[in-house]
Amino acid sequence: MVIKLADYLFTRLRQVGVHSVFGVPGDYNLRLLDFVQPSGLDWIGNCNELNAAYAADGYARIKGVSALITTFGVGELSAINGIAGAYTERAAVIHIVGTPSRALQSSRSLVHHTLADGDYRRFGAMASHVTVAQVDLKDPRRVPGQIDWVLGQSLLHSRPVYLQVPEDMADVDIDASNLKSSISVPSAPVASLGLIVMERILERIYTARHPLILVDGESRSMGILDEIEELVRMTGWPTWTTVFGKSLINEQLPNVYGIYSGRLGRLPCKDYFDSADLILNIGPHYSDTNSQNFTTIPSQAASVTFSHNSIQIGSEVYPDISSDFVSQLIRSIDESCIPRVTGPPKPTIRPDLLSPSPDITQKHFYRIVNSLFRDGDLIFTETGTAAHGGRNFILPPNTRLFGPVTWLSIGYMLPATLGAVLAQRERNNGRNTRGILFIGDGSLQMSVQEISTIIREKLNVVIFVINNGGYTIERAIHGRKQAYNDIASWRHALAMSFFGANESHAIINTFAARTWEQLDLVLKDQRVQQGEGVRMVEVFMDREDVDGALLRLMERQIQME
Amino acid sequence: MVIKLADYLFTRLRQVGVHSVFGVPGDYNLRLLDFVQPSGLDWIGNCNELNAAYAADGYARIKGVSALITTFGVGELSAINGIAGAYTERAAVIHIVGTPSRALQSSRSLVHHTLADGDYRRFGAMASHVTVAQVDLKDPRRVPGQIDWVLGQSLLHSRPVYLQVPEDMADVDIDASNLKSSISVPSAPVASLGLIVMERILERIYTARHPLILVDGESRSMGILDEIEELVRMTGWPTWTTVFGKSLINEQLPNVYGIYSGRLGRLPCKDYFDSADLILNIGPHYSDTNSQNFTTIPSQAASVTFSHNSIQIGSEVYPDISSDFVSQLIRSIDESCIPRVTGPPKPTIRPDLLSPSPDITQKHFYRIVNSLFRDGDLIFTETGTAAHGGRNFILPPNTRLFGPVTWLSIGYMLPATLGAVLAQRERNNGRNTRGILFIGDGSLQMSVQEISTIIREKLNVVIFVINNGGYTIERAIHGRKQAYNDIASWRHALAMSFFGANESHAIINTFAARTWEQLDLVLKDQRVQQGEGVRMVEVFMDREDVDGALLRLMERQIQME
Repeated sequence: MVIKLADYLFTRLRQVGVHSVFGVPGDYNLRLLDFVQPSGLDWIGNCNELNAAYAADGYARIKGVSALITTFGVGELSAINGIAGAYTERAAVIHIVGTPSRALQSSRSLVHHTLADGDYRRFGAMASHVTVAQVDLKDPRRVPGQIDWVLGQSLLHSRPVYLQVPEDMADVDIDASNLKSSISVPSAPVASLGLIVMERILERIYTARHPLILVDGESRSMGILDEIEELVRMTGWPTWTTVFGKSLINEQLPNVYGIYSGRLGRLPCKDYFDSADLILNIGPHYSDTNSQNFTTIPSQAASVTFSHNSIQIGSEVYPDISSDFVSQLIRSIDESCIPRVTGPPKPTIRPDLLSPSPDITQKHFYRIVNSLFRDGDLIFTETGTAAHGGRNFILPPNTRLFGPVTWLSIGYMLPATLGAVLAQRERNNGRNTRGILFIGDGSLQMSVQEISTIIREKLNVVIFVINNGGYTIERAIHGRKQAYNDIASWRHALAMSFFGANESHAIINTFAARTWEQLDLVLKDQRVQQGEGVRMVEVFMDREDVDGALLRLMERQIQME
Repeated sequence: MVIKLADYLFTRLRQVGVHSVFGVPGDYNLRLLDFVQPSGLDWIGNCNELNAAYAADGYARIKGVSALITTFGVGELSAINGIAGAYTERAAVIHIVGTPSRALQSSRSLVHHTLADGDYRRFGAMASHVTVAQVDLKDPRRVPGQIDWVLGQSLLHSRPVYLQVPEDMADVDIDASNLKSSISVPSAPVASLGLIVMERILERIYTARHPLILVDGESRSMGILDEIEELVRMTGWPTWTTVFGKSLINEQLPNVYGIYSGRLGRLPCKDYFDSADLILNIGPHYSDTNSQNFTTIPSQAASVTFSHNSIQIGSEVYPDISSDFVSQLIRSIDESCIPRVTGPPKPTIRPDLLSPSPDITQKHFYRIVNSLFRDGDLIFTETGTAAHGGRNFILPPNTRLFGPVTWLSIGYMLPATLGAVLAQRERNNGRNTRGILFIGDGSLQMSVQEISTIIREKLNVVIFVINNGGYTIERAIHGRKQAYNDIASWRHALAMSFFGANESHAIINTFAARTWEQLDLVLKDQRVQQGEGVRMVEVFMDREDVDGALLRLMERQIQME
């Protein structure tokens, strides 16, 4: 039995859970694109390839895997920064690149979208730095194996992979027999070591006096969120997350405390952490921005650390233990032997104290807007003041928060909102899920045109644009008064109309707030609370207004001036 | 005598002719940016890094060299597609990347904007594919030599180079003594071979019966445009250009014929070409898109070919002969010995024949809008139908046409307009030069936000947006009715207001034309003819309306359906 290459590839994409494909058409991928809709996939044409890559990343973080199609050279290189982010923060983006025909390549023809040097391998070499596996589909006999291998690698690592499809290969017949079985991610054999590790961990659990659970962000890509939730409920142990781990565990549980911030956070939490004799440290991701500049990484001696392919107990590393060990562990725990401990007191949520001035400030904004969130929302906080503010959100159940972790590419969050909200709609069988995006005016300028794709796809998204005249997070870091941190001033109120929203919808769903009173009216508005489509709320804040850790940075600058 | 690294670097930039620096601030480059304005350079903050790279490319094609500053990882990778285009089509973009401090790098610290793997060399390795030289400025003793060498390489090749500046190096003291002399591009020693080559070429010139001159696009980066113009005037020989070479030679000269199109062009031209016994082939760039799919590359036997570093006579290649050989050649020619020849008749320019229908069509649009151009304009035609139409423009003297050549990255032309018009204003000592951009609605979506930078910099630019509902050039190539070639519909009339133009300026300088009559009114309007700032003209054409070579492609598709 034979099947055309494109049909094989797209069948595989559907099997692993992809329903929408992002990208931009280009002359080397058009023949491939002919097969997208007939295969049952939706084509989401983006405004440019970087935005498409960001959207694919957002989609993969909700559905586990995503696909992106670009064209040779110009398209794929435009996307490569988004691919690098997906690599860093573990999103399985299948990046498919339409390339010139095999005949052109083997003749080293100086075609367009090359560097006019006859070398067709440069872009693949560049991609190899930011993808875990690369294939060039040039030989029909090898294609089924190549596709299955490369998709498996993406799922295994939860990272991007790279496929080149020459223009003349899209409709070439290949063997279809592999399709009878699904792509399987091999689990590591349960080594005899596994039993020893299990025993040692159980002993640590049963004998702990000051235990805690720390949920970091790679728990998501390890695919063990349900298991972690069970562990948190079963033990009742005090549980924190990192920045990357926020929202991966239900913050409404009584023993879940939110992000652990070390000496920047509450003292009772830090005291508990410091005295811990067992830290179940799950899915660690140790970057400066995910660990308060490396200060919140738990002590090795106290930690049992569950990573993608290994477990570490104290200083001993046990490799080749895959993520499903965690569910075995939970099944092995004798609940009656779990020590019951009392965590530090949770802070009482203070009533919304408005700041004395009528102006909207970073310090209070996020706590007030928090009231808008409800069960099931997806919440997005772009790199900058928005992300810092969002760390203190108290999230309803079944919400997910997207925030910057390590790659921190401004411009990411708006297209990621598109990808994630679309993916969630698919998971909900077509029922729209609300996305709420918080984004600064500087970041917005990077990828603003993708608002039009959100509009076209009829997604339910509330966009809060924080207008403070530029890159305020950078003003806090360096260059408080420097002109390079300023941006051109836009009329955000026109965004929806410009990008093609229904005109009357655009007019009645565009809001602005300069004072608390105005913000209060917006937040209570039924169009924001219950509406559909895109709603845009421009919130004005002072150019140098920051809070928390950023405030300390800003103050340090002022002292040094 | 010592100087801070950033001051040294920026002094060098000014010395080689850079006055404006493009880019986006990021936390690893802020300390470097502190030195930009004090050094006398202008900082042009762009909306995103890809747009910044495109703008720098456009600037370099006017002033010979340009500079771009981005931040580590996220910034530089966003820009890399623009750098690749500059490499392909020879624009000397100095790409300066602010990187983490040396201490962080040597500790392999997992900081943000890395892949969280401790490897700081990946992005430099990626850049090495699309730049001619790379330096990492980590040792103060080596820095002056490194900067001088890398800038020299950029000028020598007219291609991008890559500099990494660790955050802690910007204000480090380095030796300033090199600054006493300017950066020199070494010329190849005039080999004894040079004399032989000169004699052989002179003999070919004096004995030619059907000679012609072909001006290709690398003539610009070879820096010999004045010499070519002299050669064209001195010989009076029939002269054509390639797509890339268009506008590099004054099209108003009686012996200049425009682009040579081989069998797609006029028959008398092809006949003359085919019978030529001497083709002075200058600055060749042999890509499919610059040679009507390789059909217009001149015969080797008839050609004397002047390239960046070599001369080829027939099949013999003489390496290491630099571009200044051309001026030596001109000085050596005995004008009395130049054969006088008559070229094919030039076509009489037909009066503007309107198409029978009132709708605006590709076939006639470019000829009609041609009347708008005047001495000194810069004209930009984005990849797509606009570029195909623009090939037949008849250009007034001292104009420059930007069109796609080989890289063909849609989205390039709008930011390139920013860069080039800004550069031309600098060359004119602050007097605004008019830029006229022709861009399709699909390409516009890629980089639309850079309109705001054009507005902010108070440049004089007329933007014709060809609204035909998507990627019409791709509809001609493949997928005539496919939805993937459609785009979201925008309200272009709001663009200027959205992107921050003065509101009354925006209202009276936004035009639309659906008929010839409406277009005629727009073209005669004084605001378009003589105005200042940005003017935007939306021109509606049919989704499948194409002309020339694209029409043949479209017809072939229809036949095959």
